[in-house]
Parts: sequence; C-alpha cells; structure tokens
Amino acid sequence: MSDAPREIEALIEMMAKLPGLGPRSARRAVLHLIKKRGLLMNPLAEAMQAVAQTARECLNCGNISTGDVCPICTSEKRANGELCVVEDVADLWAMERSNVFKGRYHVLGGTLSALDAVGPDELRIPKLIDRVTSEGITEVILALNATIDGQTTAHYIADQLDGRVNVTSLAQGVPIGGELDYLDDGTITAALRARKSL
Amino acid sequence: MSDAPREIEALIEMMAKLPGLGPRSARRAVLHLIKKRGLLMNPLAEAMQAVAQTARECLNCGNISTGDVCPICTSEKRANGELCVVEDVADLWAMERSNVFKGRYHVLGGTLSALDAVGPDELRIPKLIDRVTSEGITEVILALNATIDGQTTAHYIADQLDGRVNVTSLAQGVPIGGELDYLDDGTITAALRARKSL
Repeated sequence: MSDAPREIEALIEMMAKLPGLGPRSARRAVLHLIKKRGLLMNPLAEAMQAVAQTARECLNCGNISTGDVCPICTSEKRANGELCVVEDVADLWAMERSNVFKGRYHVLGGTLSALDAVGPDELRIPKLIDRVTSEGITEVILALNATIDGQTTAHYIADQLDGRVNVTSLAQGVPIGGELDYLDDGTITAALRARKSL
Repeated sequence: MSDAPREIEALIEMMAKLPGLGPRSARRAVLHLIKKRGLLMNPLAEAMQAVAQTARECLNCGNISTGDVCPICTSEKRANGELCVVEDVADLWAMERSNVFKGRYHVLGGTLSALDAVGPDELRIPKLIDRVTSEGITEVILALNATIDGQTTAHYIADQLDGRVNVTSLAQGVPIGGELDYLDDGTITAALRARKSL
C-alpha cells in the first residue's frame, strides 16, 4: 500500500513540479498545509484559483497583470520615451523593486537560442520594433542577463533597431558590496575595460 | 506602486509561508504557476481544495487520512500486536516507505518539551496507554527521533508503560552506507557501546 492517501499523493506530486521543491520538500510542504488546512490551505487554494482566472499577459508588453493591458502600459506617467527590454517578468519585477526606472517595459519571454530553436518570432521582437515607432520611444535600454544567450539577443536587437532609436544596455562591472577576491575573471575584465576617472 | 498585481502578491506571500520556500523562491514558483496556469495551476488549486476538505487526523492513531479512521487502523492484517510510536505523520510515512513494519502506528504529534510547555496531555500519550490495553498490544516500538526531546519522550513513555507491555526502541548505530570519518562522536559512541559479536 502507498504511504499516503491517493489524493494527498497526487497533491505532493504536483507540488514537486514547482521550481525549488523536490519530492521530499513537497511532502513536507503538503503535511504543513494539511496541519494548517483552515488557516493556510483553503486560503492558498482560493488565492491560486483567483490568480489562475485573472492573471494574463499584457497584450502590449508581456508583463503579467489582471487586465488585457497592464497598469504600467496604461499609465501616462510612464510614457517618458524610455523602453526597458527584459527577458522575463521576474526581471521586470526586479527592475520595479529597485524603483529607479520610470519608463515602460517590454518582456521578450526568453532569449534567442540556436540550441532550443528559439528565433526572433518566438520572442516578442517584432512587437518591440512596432512599439519603438508607435509609442515614440527615444531610448531602448537592454536589461538582459549577462549570459551568452542574453548578450546574443541584445546584439541582435541592437542590429534590428540600428539608426531608428538610441539603444543602450545596463553597465557591467563590480556589484555594489562585491569583493574582488570573490568575483569571476569575466566581471573583473569587464569592470577594468569600463573603468571611469574619479 | 507594487511590482506585481495585488492578487499575485497575496499568493506569493502565502506560498512563502510553506516550509522550504522563502519570498524569492515563492515568487519564482508563482511565476512558474502563472505561465502554466492551465496545466498546473488550476489542477493544483483543485487538488489542494480536495485535500483540505477530505484530509483529517485518524481518531485512533493520528495518521492523516480521508476518513475518520485510517486504513492502517481498520486493516485486520495490521493487528499483529505491535505498535510503533512516532512523533509525526512524516515519520509514519518514512516507516511505511521502508515497508518492513507490519503492525499499527501511534502518532504522538510532537515530543515532550519543557521549553515549549508541551506536556503528556498535549501529545497523544493518554490515548496510547488506552490503546495498549484495548487493542491487546504486546510490543510498543518507540521510533522517536534521536534528539534530546525525542529521547526524553521515549523514556517518559517507557516509564508509563512499565510492566504492562514490552517496550523497545529503534537501534542506534552507524547508518547503512555511512563512513566513520563523517559520523559525529555521539553516533560512534552509541555504535561502539551497542557492538555485536559477528
């Protein structure tokens, strides 16, 4: 016989599919949920159903929101001519948390990747090129991850937009609070090449 | 403004309360769920609601089950006179996975703890003493964690049952596959004291 009832095993299996949880931690999480079923499990199931019903991708930028167009795209205040291109919604949220960028976003939904057969049409690159014209964008800021795929995608987008708009990218260098001894060679090389006079 | 819509922030906050997930991994899990809302999020919410409605503690042993009395307590095959006492349902599931114990269980729901003011009545100790008589138990096997609280609880239960029934506990020693060099002093001491002739 199985060690837990069938419904509970099914729940554990689904929880184990979440990133960051394996079979063992999913089991622990489900036991915790069952112990707190009134306080945590019922509200969590309801919150999950509510989000599953309302959350969708913004038709304009790809951000996740509860309407067809997200609050950033509808806010006139954010129409300052700056467009920040990110790979993923998580990156958009990270930029928003830093609370320093006041323009709009464009979420690509990934990076170009020859290995995974991801071309420009799989990402939101055609839509990005449309928006640059239709929204009167003056600067496209590429905030892509400093990985090989991220940088390849950045160069591809810069080529496509060449001449139409000012294209910039995030600075690379020593992170704030970073200790040289713990940094990789690539970061030190980039930081040295981009050195500034004090 | 917040970096995610209110409903989504609420879901992230609840997910972050699960053991093994922090705010950052909860955010990542929720984004994953939103991306797979048809395939994973809706079924997960439904499975969670189903378990929240049906799962309850077995009135006899404290195991989690979908009825008032769990399948192990109702199975006549498991009435072999052996009763295995565990701290938690997770420990019961671990024992069941090893597939070697054929008797019944009794889940205490924790350990005695002076610091947390947990006395015998907060655990299922009175019920355990009842069961020893009413179910004709011949051996009580204490499978409690090898922690100070676990061992204190084991000694307390052994005292309470003294003379009524044979009380044993799991052997302590070198775990299978364990290397002496990586074992703590306490385990080596226990294994040496309990050495057996080959």
